[in-house]
Amino acid sequence: MVTELLSTFLDDLLGDAELARLIGTTADCAAMLRFELALARTAADHGLIPQAAASEISAAAATFQPDLALLRRATLKDGVVVPEFVRQLRQHVGEPAGRHIHFGATSQDVIDTALALKLKPVFDLFETRLEAVIARLEALIRTFGNNPMMGRTRMQAAIPITAGDRLAVWCGLVERAKGQIGEVRRQNLILSLSGPAGTAEKFGGKISGVRRDIASALELSAPDYVPHAARDRIAGLGNWLSQVTGALGKIGQDIALMAQNEIAEVVIDSAGGSSAMAHKHNPVLAEVLVTLARFNAVQLSGLHQALVHEQERSGAAWTLEWMILPQMLNATGTALQHAQALLASITRLGTAPPG
Amino acid sequence: MVTELLSTFLDDLLGDAELARLIGTTADCAAMLRFELALARTAADHGLIPQAAASEISAAAATFQPDLALLRRATLKDGVVVPEFVRQLRQHVGEPAGRHIHFGATSQDVIDTALALKLKPVFDLFETRLEAVIARLEALIRTFGNNPMMGRTRMQAAIPITAGDRLAVWCGLVERAKGQIGEVRRQNLILSLSGPAGTAEKFGGKISGVRRDIASALELSAPDYVPHAARDRIAGLGNWLSQVTGALGKIGQDIALMAQNEIAEVVIDSAGGSSAMAHKHNPVLAEVLVTLARFNAVQLSGLHQALVHEQERSGAAWTLEWMILPQMLNATGTALQHAQALLASITRLGTAPPG
Amino acid sequence: MVTELLSTFLDDLLGDAELARLIGTTADCAAMLRFELALARTAADHGLIPQAAASEISAAAATFQPDLALLRRATLKDGVVVPEFVRQLRQHVGEPAGRHIHFGATSQDVIDTALALKLKPVFDLFETRLEAVIARLEALIRTFGNNPMMGRTRMQAAIPITAGDRLAVWCGLVERAKGQIGEVRRQNLILSLSGPAGTAEKFGGKISGVRRDIASALELSAPDYVPHAARDRIAGLGNWLSQVTGALGKIGQDIALMAQNEIAEVVIDSAGGSSAMAHKHNPVLAEVLVTLARFNAVQLSGLHQALVHEQERSGAAWTLEWMILPQMLNATGTALQHAQALLASITRLGTAPPG
Amino acid sequence: MVTELLSTFLDDLLGDAELARLIGTTADCAAMLRFELALARTAADHGLIPQAAASEISAAAATFQPDLALLRRATLKDGVVVPEFVRQLRQHVGEPAGRHIHFGATSQDVIDTALALKLKPVFDLFETRLEAVIARLEALIRTFGNNPMMGRTRMQAAIPITAGDRLAVWCGLVERAKGQIGEVRRQNLILSLSGPAGTAEKFGGKISGVRRDIASALELSAPDYVPHAARDRIAGLGNWLSQVTGALGKIGQDIALMAQNEIAEVVIDSAGGSSAMAHKHNPVLAEVLVTLARFNAVQLSGLHQALVHEQERSGAAWTLEWMILPQMLNATGTALQHAQALLASITRLGTAPPG
Repeated sequence: MVTELLSTFLDDLLGDAELARLIGTTADCAAMLRFELALARTAADHGLIPQAAASEISAAAATFQPDLALLRRATLKDGVVVPEFVRQLRQHVGEPAGRHIHFGATSQDVIDTALALKLKPVFDLFETRLEAVIARLEALIRTFGNNPMMGRTRMQAAIPITAGDRLAVWCGLVERAKGQIGEVRRQNLILSLSGPAGTAEKFGGKISGVRRDIASALELSAPDYVPHAARDRIAGLGNWLSQVTGALGKIGQDIALMAQNEIAEVVIDSAGGSSAMAHKHNPVLAEVLVTLARFNAVQLSGLHQALVHEQERSGAAWTLEWMILPQMLNATGTALQHAQALLASITRLGTAPPG
Repeated sequence: MVTELLSTFLDDLLGDAELARLIGTTADCAAMLRFELALARTAADHGLIPQAAASEISAAAATFQPDLALLRRATLKDGVVVPEFVRQLRQHVGEPAGRHIHFGATSQDVIDTALALKLKPVFDLFETRLEAVIARLEALIRTFGNNPMMGRTRMQAAIPITAGDRLAVWCGLVERAKGQIGEVRRQNLILSLSGPAGTAEKFGGKISGVRRDIASALELSAPDYVPHAARDRIAGLGNWLSQVTGALGKIGQDIALMAQNEIAEVVIDSAGGSSAMAHKHNPVLAEVLVTLARFNAVQLSGLHQALVHEQERSGAAWTLEWMILPQMLNATGTALQHAQALLASITRLGTAPPG
Repeated sequence: MVTELLSTFLDDLLGDAELARLIGTTADCAAMLRFELALARTAADHGLIPQAAASEISAAAATFQPDLALLRRATLKDGVVVPEFVRQLRQHVGEPAGRHIHFGATSQDVIDTALALKLKPVFDLFETRLEAVIARLEALIRTFGNNPMMGRTRMQAAIPITAGDRLAVWCGLVERAKGQIGEVRRQNLILSLSGPAGTAEKFGGKISGVRRDIASALELSAPDYVPHAARDRIAGLGNWLSQVTGALGKIGQDIALMAQNEIAEVVIDSAGGSSAMAHKHNPVLAEVLVTLARFNAVQLSGLHQALVHEQERSGAAWTLEWMILPQMLNATGTALQHAQALLASITRLGTAPPG
Repeated sequence: MVTELLSTFLDDLLGDAELARLIGTTADCAAMLRFELALARTAADHGLIPQAAASEISAAAATFQPDLALLRRATLKDGVVVPEFVRQLRQHVGEPAGRHIHFGATSQDVIDTALALKLKPVFDLFETRLEAVIARLEALIRTFGNNPMMGRTRMQAAIPITAGDRLAVWCGLVERAKGQIGEVRRQNLILSLSGPAGTAEKFGGKISGVRRDIASALELSAPDYVPHAARDRIAGLGNWLSQVTGALGKIGQDIALMAQNEIAEVVIDSAGGSSAMAHKHNPVLAEVLVTLARFNAVQLSGLHQALVHEQERSGAAWTLEWMILPQMLNATGTALQHAQALLASITRLGTAPPG
């Protein structure tokens, strides 16, 4: 949240710096600007604002540096950054072109579309990492798949299985999570442009074409109408993120149990040290995968509470999304990184095959 | 949960009797029996148990009445009903056929497949109700769609819209929820048959054919291998149920706000009375839709916690699903009924059209 | 919830029949009736209704049998059982005395006070069980306290401790939970009597005396004014219930880990059987303690969501409490029973002391 | 969490900069250092390490600047910052004194005690703010208490009340939350010193005195033994934080409803603007109070999940606390600030008193 809320020394253990770059302030401002520029350009193309204004806006945008301190203060007052962002951008562009910025749009059009723009590279990043995790699991299957291991149910030894049997379950979970990313993209990488109360009334009959052209410019899809108050795609995104961390959390829990001294069905190269006990090799990343899974399982409840989004726009429910979704993205990105590292550090899985 | 936990006078307000019949004790025992019969028949067809045994089992099943008191006591001891259920069924069938019951299967195969069998008519019921809700919304659009109404954002009047504008948002939410039921069915209406530790070792090379034939007999699909410890479909089902109640909760919240005396943008015929104030007409069902949405949003967190399902079977995580999923199904079924009744009772929406 | 929602064979594993009797329909109706009788008697004593009416009401109450089917139907309409309950009671008593029933009160006075009346024996029951769990732990300390055992941190062997070291941690958790019951009683065993909008306007200046006398008759305490919309005591009760199950869940998790075959730091007499593996002895109750802890941790979120209880009474938030609190009470009662049984079944804890 | 996860322009709306200073990196390192210094000093006083070493450690500490980049990297490996922190501190102090740092302690002693040290000024801050909120409410009662207003139940007009009636409910909620801070302090402002597996074995019979003296130096209390695995005080702290935000969220929800145009039972001076609708005055802070209440209600579930803290220390459960508790503190601090500002901006409450 605010800088320094968590100690920075936790940044690598519990944070995903690569993700943060994709969704933090700079990315956010850039995404909002992209929306406003595409809107101005398209509005001009459809004869809704002067072409000259759109050109001036585009030209000036290259040197636009929002005043972050003012943005922060105004966001406290307005509950959303957009009014002040637009004000600064208009001032930067100057009159008369400036007044044509944000034509027909409302704050939520900007924020929701900017979210889609930020999510785009996030999904790419996550997909790449999911593939890397799957590759690691497949490598482990190749290397250790035939090793014998005890199958365990209800925390008791059941019957012998192979390391490959358990690895296949892990791999299937991650593959199914990856398999859903297309649908998550389809639902979330969309343009929002509906105006103050959803009726896009400034655009008249041109709204469909405007949406199509802006979406095309932003490489998003353009469902005909995305009501601001319909948040099912956000709740669905949360579900997917928690499915990803849940899959990795199950793997982490299994590895932590396998790493117990008396059981020793896994050997990890990267285990952490203790401040008091030099002999200890703690399966830190395995434990953190469990943490991140439980964290996201908790957060998901908040995104679903936010489905009760009253009337044409709920400040209360929408703001709850802002607090939770970035946390879930971060937990997911972090878990994907840790899963890769953890799986890469396994030097034995199952027990040694009988001589 | 146990009888009498909630007062029975809440049964209509917070319960769905039709659903309860589809998933309660009788339905559960019937589903488990169907699994065991299909398993025996198919095992015989594949030469794994004697055909005569399968025939005797089928014949005797018709008169099988499990002793529920014994089932309850044994479930406390075993953590799952299946060992005692199988024991009773074997005793009922008698030897030598009885010993062939439950060939190669484990408790979780029975419970998870029985869940799929119970979910089948539940999904049909929910789909029918979703369609009925949509039909009600469409009728409201036809009747009141052109009525003027105030668009409201952040709890403040924004700009005028029509009743149809808001109804279209509601309708879209319910339609999208309905649109996902196919995927939910695909993921959940599946056969589980993996044996004690997932390796289906008693079936050898015949397992694929056995799965295909049992699934066919039970009208389920048969993915090649459904690991007991992979619970993503349950978490995904929970997400969908909460999406449904979330959509209806948004409608309920809107209606409760519209029904405020000074706003009066909706008139409801069925509003409830007060014990102290005869003049009151409370939008009870609208409020309960909010309740049910928040309830499911809470519960969903538990199904995602249960994704951390350790090893080949977790008693702890699995049992958590048993406590939560029926509650979510009930909340969803109840919300669908209430939404229909509430929408049917609307006698005006928006303000009267100008002259 | 509604009968048959969960299969009855789960009643012993996941339900507390003794608790159900204390809070179910019969107990609920009895508690509501006690409130109305004490109100009538006290209102008469304070000259607010005729003494003769109070006497008739008391006399007739002995034979009052509410019509549960009508209650259920009316609750669906009114959102709360009280209007119909009062109507039936008035009809049963007959005029003119009947009209004096429910003098100055509102539905929430009845429901909230009835909850307090039901909680009273529940707290007694839970206290007795907490003491029994503590006694079991103390007995284990006496019997096995000196047994060596491996201290374990982050799922890794740390340094040797004794069984008594770990048992002392368990015992301290349960003792602290028990230590908080006085405060929980103080906050929850209170009379609610505030009238329709909290102003108790029908009682005028007599309200303090009326509250004191009714509370005294019901053996509750009577804070001067308990606003219907202030739900902190319910959220606090939920916190305590989850603290109890959390303490027992930690014990259950530890025992499940100690019972692992290779570790064998506990031997349990009562372990459950498998439908497929005769050799297995599953630590069922230990796992279920974890389940119940996670269940209550999930539910607690809902009771805290219900703190956002709008205006003088929120149907939405209040109803959410009704759905969740009984579940949490049941989970807590069940966990306390299972903890006793589990601890009683331990025949060794720690490893055998060195010869 | 990690810097830049949320856009910085949300820092004032959703963050509490004053709180962040009390719990962020600098405060955290300072608190850990205070623990180590008090431990060294006391260990020397009790003859456990040389007095000269303690003096050298104290002297050198003044110039100790931890290398944050190394701390971050090591925390990823070890799962906790302490081993590297101690290593750096030892290196800074030099041998032979350095080796006496961290005598008999373990990572969790440091982290948990540092948390207590950080919480101390946080509780002071929150208490001051709670008092300020109460003062604002009392001022509103004095100014507007007699204004008439409609009492509302189930979102419907019930009977007339006064603004003071509702304000008294708000005030009571905040006062009761404040009333619990003493108990929260008592439970949380404690020293943890138990050594690697809770047995404080390096201190032998001196442990009680050592605990007493360190606690005294740190102005904490010293219960005889604080097991690392007993997390009830953290869950209880979470409950209190969510009680605070729940109380403020109820106030926020009421104000947002009162501010509706047709109802106009409150006038706010500070309402926020819209990017599209110049006429709008949005009750932003009121809405955000609802957001923060729901946020904390969600998070609380995670702290209670973390009660299932296995064995002598759970990396998974403990780390979950790290992710959630700072967020809850931040949400609470932010809500307290917003509540003050919102209440201070009210220029009318209730309707104007009759002429």
